[in-house]
Amino acid sequence: MNEFEAIGYLQRRLGTPVDAADLPLGIGDDAALIATHGAPAMAVCTDTLVAGRHFSADYSAADIGFRALSVNLSDFAAMGVRPQYFQLALTLPNLDAAWLAGFCDGMAALSEPHSLVLAGGDLTGGPLCVSVTLFGATQTHTVLTRTGARVGDRIMVSGQLGGPFLALAARMQGQSADPQCDARLLRPAPRVALGCALAGVANAAIDISDGLVQDLGHICRGSGVAMRVCVDAIPHLAPEDIPLDLRRQAVLAGGEEYELAFTVPAEHATEVRLLAQRIGVPIADIGEVRAADAAHLEPVVQVVDSTGSAVRLEQSGFMHFR
Amino acid sequence: MNEFEAIGYLQRRLGTPVDAADLPLGIGDDAALIATHGAPAMAVCTDTLVAGRHFSADYSAADIGFRALSVNLSDFAAMGVRPQYFQLALTLPNLDAAWLAGFCDGMAALSEPHSLVLAGGDLTGGPLCVSVTLFGATQTHTVLTRTGARVGDRIMVSGQLGGPFLALAARMQGQSADPQCDARLLRPAPRVALGCALAGVANAAIDISDGLVQDLGHICRGSGVAMRVCVDAIPHLAPEDIPLDLRRQAVLAGGEEYELAFTVPAEHATEVRLLAQRIGVPIADIGEVRAADAAHLEPVVQVVDSTGSAVRLEQSGFMHFR
Repeated sequence: MNEFEAIGYLQRRLGTPVDAADLPLGIGDDAALIATHGAPAMAVCTDTLVAGRHFSADYSAADIGFRALSVNLSDFAAMGVRPQYFQLALTLPNLDAAWLAGFCDGMAALSEPHSLVLAGGDLTGGPLCVSVTLFGATQTHTVLTRTGARVGDRIMVSGQLGGPFLALAARMQGQSADPQCDARLLRPAPRVALGCALAGVANAAIDISDGLVQDLGHICRGSGVAMRVCVDAIPHLAPEDIPLDLRRQAVLAGGEEYELAFTVPAEHATEVRLLAQRIGVPIADIGEVRAADAAHLEPVVQVVDSTGSAVRLEQSGFMHFR
Repeated sequence: MNEFEAIGYLQRRLGTPVDAADLPLGIGDDAALIATHGAPAMAVCTDTLVAGRHFSADYSAADIGFRALSVNLSDFAAMGVRPQYFQLALTLPNLDAAWLAGFCDGMAALSEPHSLVLAGGDLTGGPLCVSVTLFGATQTHTVLTRTGARVGDRIMVSGQLGGPFLALAARMQGQSADPQCDARLLRPAPRVALGCALAGVANAAIDISDGLVQDLGHICRGSGVAMRVCVDAIPHLAPEDIPLDLRRQAVLAGGEEYELAFTVPAEHATEVRLLAQRIGVPIADIGEVRAADAAHLEPVVQVVDSTGSAVRLEQSGFMHFR
């Protein structure tokens, strides 16, 4: 049983409402939408960080606090929803005032600029684990999902990819990472403003948490389409001396990016470029949405280089259980 | 730093909205209330279960799943709010189909009768930990809080106390527990129907998760009152051969009860007895709310026996960090 099978099982057993109108969007996207008696829908997402899995022992308390909010804000960015409140489930081996102050500093670095308020949560003793659940009121029809990509859409990404993967690789080898790469690993900036601006303009969006190709694959399966991506069109953070293969692996399959990947009708591409410019987030056109191959002989996300030759991937993205 | 100081710190640093109207009820009660632009408020609570802390290795997957929902439903019961949706942050050492099926069986045993739907969540690898966040739409003015107790109120509890403490004690000594006590430990029935019926009738309520005296103390501090409780008036599950001291300890300070303790204006006591009878939940009058001692010389919750003599407690309740 892999994690996707497990999630499907949970959805079938526990996530199916009697009246589908109660849950406009359930398991399977970056956030769920719950309905509340004629009121605006509420978007909800949960992300958990486990010590030793999602961050290593050398992360500061502030980096952990920042990250716990950042990964959740990134899910809302991918839905085009403005976050308002969060619940914090914080499990700590012991209570240390200095650690908690650092952790709060890291969280406040994101909660304050986003006017995000801690509503409640649970503080428990145990192995270090931080789970955040984020809420925000929204309108069901403006939300960006994984199911709206259409054949002919342009595929775009924000920012420059590969940094977190290369920083992690350097850290695991005991080397000092490139400072730009390290900053993207430790303090990934969630693209909330861009995501909210894209709501109603883009057709589909996802945040790149598990690797570009794997995450684009989620849009393909959700939308019933395929994609062709040019690896050389993807802006990257890799230093010049990184071998080409490693750079491509980092860009295509390195997770923890927390950039947005989204699809836009070709006729809206210029409008989207202008709004991203206004917000100050670089975006790039990296490929196009194509018709799905009915026979499933080709990968849903086909990667080519600038000459049009196919690029092979050793691994398409991060698996949480292996 | 103890857990209450830590929670206070988190609230000051992260839980203070610019406009208090956005968060009618924040940290410090069984659930928070968040406002959504003129719509009904949304009640939210989070409870985490950590392996080895909140349940032992001999709990079945179904018991863990049941418990994870039960402790959260109990928080909503204490607020008088009907639950609608939940988010599940599930951290597992490995993915096992049989374990997951059992876990879902346990959750479904509560989610189905309560028409509660899994909206989303996060599945991660790591030490076993289950965190549930529960939502339900409600009206701010009908919610039961810890702050509404008034001098002269009668104090009431649902069910029979002491069972979970005695079952745990027996298990820790390798003995077989009394079946009734064990059932209350493994399958605590959240009092949602009673809590919802009490909304608008009771003045204050809390669920007994950390021990009766400690939890009543939260109402006292929240409401600025004191209490006098008669230990002999508290219905208990203790078998006849349990020493009196141990029985009292179990009833007054044993946690994990998930029964409701609430205060009711004396003139509503009969009405409350009738509505509890209609729902089929036994309740008992165990004491009265008194004026707080301004000099703080007395404990906020004074416990006496049927002769009026003070009863001493070794420990008032469960501390999550010690």
